[in-house]
Amino acid sequence: MTHRTYNLALIGFGNVGRTFISLLARKRERLINEHSLDFRITGVATRTLGWLVDPKGFDLDQLLRADFGDAAAADSLRHWMVAARPDAVFETTALNPHTGQPAIDHLRSALEHGAHAISANKGPVVYGYEELTALAAKMHRKFYFESSVMDGAPIFNLFRECLPAIELRGFRGILNSTTNVILEAMEQGQSFDDAVRHTQQIGVAESDPSNDIDGWDAAVKVAALATVLMKHPLKPDQVERVGIRGITKQQIDAAKIDGRRYKVVCSAHLDGDKLHARVAPQALPLSDPLAQVAGTSSVISFETDMLPALAIHEINPGLEAVAYGLLTDFLRAVKE
Amino acid sequence: MTHRTYNLALIGFGNVGRTFISLLARKRERLINEHSLDFRITGVATRTLGWLVDPKGFDLDQLLRADFGDAAAADSLRHWMVAARPDAVFETTALNPHTGQPAIDHLRSALEHGAHAISANKGPVVYGYEELTALAAKMHRKFYFESSVMDGAPIFNLFRECLPAIELRGFRGILNSTTNVILEAMEQGQSFDDAVRHTQQIGVAESDPSNDIDGWDAAVKVAALATVLMKHPLKPDQVERVGIRGITKQQIDAAKIDGRRYKVVCSAHLDGDKLHARVAPQALPLSDPLAQVAGTSSVISFETDMLPALAIHEINPGLEAVAYGLLTDFLRAVKE
Repeated sequence: MTHRTYNLALIGFGNVGRTFISLLARKRERLINEHSLDFRITGVATRTLGWLVDPKGFDLDQLLRADFGDAAAADSLRHWMVAARPDAVFETTALNPHTGQPAIDHLRSALEHGAHAISANKGPVVYGYEELTALAAKMHRKFYFESSVMDGAPIFNLFRECLPAIELRGFRGILNSTTNVILEAMEQGQSFDDAVRHTQQIGVAESDPSNDIDGWDAAVKVAALATVLMKHPLKPDQVERVGIRGITKQQIDAAKIDGRRYKVVCSAHLDGDKLHARVAPQALPLSDPLAQVAGTSSVISFETDMLPALAIHEINPGLEAVAYGLLTDFLRAVKE
Repeated sequence: MTHRTYNLALIGFGNVGRTFISLLARKRERLINEHSLDFRITGVATRTLGWLVDPKGFDLDQLLRADFGDAAAADSLRHWMVAARPDAVFETTALNPHTGQPAIDHLRSALEHGAHAISANKGPVVYGYEELTALAAKMHRKFYFESSVMDGAPIFNLFRECLPAIELRGFRGILNSTTNVILEAMEQGQSFDDAVRHTQQIGVAESDPSNDIDGWDAAVKVAALATVLMKHPLKPDQVERVGIRGITKQQIDAAKIDGRRYKVVCSAHLDGDKLHARVAPQALPLSDPLAQVAGTSSVISFETDMLPALAIHEINPGLEAVAYGLLTDFLRAVKE
């Protein structure tokens, strides 16, 4: 059976980018046999490495050892696109919760050069959804971003592909792992500062965890879901946002005695034409399914006109779940 | 914008069929505007009414009052197909858990006459999957059956559309409402017989509830999921099956004291090449998410190579959820 070989290029080459390469290598045979496609990685770009290009394709084993051989470096995003000639660009740079940049520029350039634009970064979803979706349509390419919320668990694709003609009235979920793990550590007796340090040590929190602690990360997710699924464009600063800096050990202990547990609840609800969107810690009764979400697990429950509540629960995802979201976006983009 | 009008025909016209007609009527504007399609119902068939046909389309209001006007009756399935000229046939007759008939004959005839075959009946999925899927491919039509497991919650479409190149290793869920409601009533103090009567009175159990009580309904669902999603053809009698007739109030009460709750757990797990599939009541600890599934809600948790556990939870579905599954199948079939 003949198959087509696609040029893939990655902007951002941290844990997610590397895990994506491993995943591609591991699934290669299946991609060839079941999806009639193969791939080569023709571009890898990071802030420190610059715009690396290998038009014949990087060696995957070397790439995974961060050995880029004698790859040439382009002098700009534009020249990199021209040299790497990607069919799909995978954007995995860090989130800027206030502008979505420079990821939007990367994805715009990808589409302009005829590549599918696939993002694990939710910034471009809230700040660039309309523009990038329109540009993708014009270029007959796709702008997809499944990994940007709940890793590779199907959320955006679920609505796009499996829930046609449905009316989404609201949602409620636990969508930020860092605050979930911090609150759990506090429940086990740690102070806020110790809990933050613990969460950093196990690799869940970033070195500067303020985007998580202050609710920005969750607010961007709520805005992305409202914008895309509810067709109600929303910016993160329009989400009512309460962080967890104010939560004391005393509050956590009092909740515990009361049979409750603090969780950062993300929610949005349509009231007529008005959308109420909120991120805030709440002391939930243990009977609330959201109270049971532990560690890096996450859950979202959708209220629709057809199914009173449909909940998606992702339990203990690893980095591979994020990489898998990139893969599903790619396979869908080239299938269409 | 131009739209195409599709001829739809229904075999089976009980609660599900009627709810489907209401749903179509309610979503008509949206179907025209967003999916560029309209519909007319050209055939309705039941055992008592026979093979009714109205090539110009039944009046929906009359149809919902079970007023079939002066519709002609065809003398056979074949003549009905020829007269109704359906683009899609919706099969919602009662399950035969041991043969899948006569639903398989209905769906085969639909495909042979160039219609998409859409089933809310899981019998044809386990007894006719291979044949009907091959016939659909040959005829460039679709055989879809989203409503056959967990109503309209996307399960089959989820894997087909959103989880490419994934390896499903097993699943575990609560998939039978009747036994769930019976066990709950017993927990609240009723005897088995009273609980069965109560479940019939609220319209959850059928007049002969033995397919549910003896685990056949659940076994057919497990077999359907294994056959389609795990590509491991399985017949219901190959599923280890324990019904709930043997569960006593004493057992239920003892479990309660022990902090446990009886649930009929459906599961399948691959052990090498061997598939272990099982339906059986189990006394689950309350910390098990399956123990929390109440009433007609259902849940299934999938174990895959990409996402350690992905669970879909459908809470308090009504009949409209089943009808919605038929609609999603139809929209997907005509989109492809």
